[in-house]
Amino acid sequence: MTETAGFAIPTPYLVFLGAAHDQLAGKTGVGVAQWRREACVGQMRLPGCRADAGLPDLSLEDAAARGAKTFLIGTTTRGGRIDRDWIPLLLRALELGMDIASGLHDRVADIPEVAEAARRLGRSIHDVRHPRGSFPVGTGEKRSGKRVLTIGTDCSIGKMFTALALHRAMIEAGMKATFRATGQTGILIAGSGIPLDAVVADFISGAVEVLCPANDPDHWDVIEGQASVLHPSYAGVTVGLVMGAQPDAMVLVHDPTRRTMRGLGSRPVPGIAETMEAHLATARVTNPNARIIGISLNTQHMAEKDALAEIARTAERFALPTIDPARTGCAPLIEALRAI
Amino acid sequence: MTETAGFAIPTPYLVFLGAAHDQLAGKTGVGVAQWRREACVGQMRLPGCRADAGLPDLSLEDAAARGAKTFLIGTTTRGGRIDRDWIPLLLRALELGMDIASGLHDRVADIPEVAEAARRLGRSIHDVRHPRGSFPVGTGEKRSGKRVLTIGTDCSIGKMFTALALHRAMIEAGMKATFRATGQTGILIAGSGIPLDAVVADFISGAVEVLCPANDPDHWDVIEGQASVLHPSYAGVTVGLVMGAQPDAMVLVHDPTRRTMRGLGSRPVPGIAETMEAHLATARVTNPNARIIGISLNTQHMAEKDALAEIARTAERFALPTIDPARTGCAPLIEALRAI
Repeated sequence: MTETAGFAIPTPYLVFLGAAHDQLAGKTGVGVAQWRREACVGQMRLPGCRADAGLPDLSLEDAAARGAKTFLIGTTTRGGRIDRDWIPLLLRALELGMDIASGLHDRVADIPEVAEAARRLGRSIHDVRHPRGSFPVGTGEKRSGKRVLTIGTDCSIGKMFTALALHRAMIEAGMKATFRATGQTGILIAGSGIPLDAVVADFISGAVEVLCPANDPDHWDVIEGQASVLHPSYAGVTVGLVMGAQPDAMVLVHDPTRRTMRGLGSRPVPGIAETMEAHLATARVTNPNARIIGISLNTQHMAEKDALAEIARTAERFALPTIDPARTGCAPLIEALRAI
Repeated sequence: MTETAGFAIPTPYLVFLGAAHDQLAGKTGVGVAQWRREACVGQMRLPGCRADAGLPDLSLEDAAARGAKTFLIGTTTRGGRIDRDWIPLLLRALELGMDIASGLHDRVADIPEVAEAARRLGRSIHDVRHPRGSFPVGTGEKRSGKRVLTIGTDCSIGKMFTALALHRAMIEAGMKATFRATGQTGILIAGSGIPLDAVVADFISGAVEVLCPANDPDHWDVIEGQASVLHPSYAGVTVGLVMGAQPDAMVLVHDPTRRTMRGLGSRPVPGIAETMEAHLATARVTNPNARIIGISLNTQHMAEKDALAEIARTAERFALPTIDPARTGCAPLIEALRAI
């Protein structure tokens, strides 16, 4: 049933920041440059752009000369629309031998002249918000290799960041590890993955089984989490992800300053203990040995002193290694993973 | 974001049984005739058909003369394929003023000449396995009206049957109730609904919120359940359904003779207590007052004496009204619902 499962985007990238009006509007490109510096030949900015991914500014021709394989749209736009002014650039990038990758809501492949040019030139368009191919139904059958999944008390709380930081720390520690992306930004960073929230409901856990298949016994998949099993809008996605992942280990991500769930009015963020219990119950359906091995606090809105105190308090309260990957690094989690 | 949410299929139906080689191959049409007798003008059978929905045998012309509004494909086929021999019949049905409804895997709307004829004649094709329109993201916000949802220990265990029987009993008892279909057979029976397993993951609970919207305080939606929150393949669908439904009441369906989960090798069927606990935890995310008000046993594979003993034992063990809708009727559940 599986055709091309997920994406495989050629690197290196030319990171296109368009006319992003501030750094936040260019966050996709900035994130790709932050986590995959070695996979970026440079950035391309239009007049008025106020975002900077810290890469050399290149023209399309310069980027092609430096071997760019993919023109990566690294800016967000109002409503996820594709700016009509970009079309000549997209066509030229294709002519220069590049694929196009986009995490925008609108599909690049829906622009007839761009789709036609890609077909004629034998290039691919990677619209990573839209799943490619079809997936099997999940089986829940045990598979070899180890998997660690980030979970959290809410959406947009740092699950991708924690997974990327943990993956980098594991590689630096000499462990065999692969980052597995489940959302569009993660897919653009990793160059592969499956946009889980866009998969048809029946196939969520099956898609995750394809995303992180059987592997060497000492290999770790580090899987980007999504939402929460206690989230009234997206819990279906999370439950399919947790069951498909069969995680040996989970790292819980929480923001101590967030009081209400994002986009859900006054609904309070569930507590850490409640969130742990719900995710463990779900994970144990397919992996009875699933456990939570640590906590990752997103303390970006706290002063350094308060943040460190909160991290220490949380570690003591839950008797679990607790970090903020942006402040303290991931060393305590590495130790916990090695113990499995 | 919502366009045409779900299906609305005009009745009465002409139930087409094709050349179904046995009664089971005609089970969709037989089910429609069983639960919506008043919505069927008759059945149409091809030479060699061995299924019988107990309806008058009619030609297309006779059915049209009796006011048939939809030609309903009530037979399953190998691989869910549409038999090429049916195409002249489909075209003639459209010409006679009928819509076409199908729960097969293949889309009738993908047959060019049929799609073209429907367009030309202003008729609709209802491929109920494939969701129509788009759905909003779920909000989890409390809405008025009451909702009862069937849940179960496995797939294909009797959740639709129990919901239909309960709905019928509630109407007979003078309650205000609407059956809400979430799967293709249920949709063909009800003439409306949403095929939940085919909705994109992000919108599962949102689709359910659309399916059973706010209603009068004394009105009950009787919602067809899907799979189980403990099912390794489909739990994402179920969790989205349970959270979107915000059920005030749930009825647990179980088959005492089933030892292993359907299609999952030797994985044992979870117990009733475990299944209750998991569904209650999920339901309480959006409705803290959710409760399980009864148990529906599917005892079709048991002798009458054993079945009645099992029903009595289960009622006592869980201190809950317990029925088999096919043997004992739904009266004890009606009492429990009235008490809410």
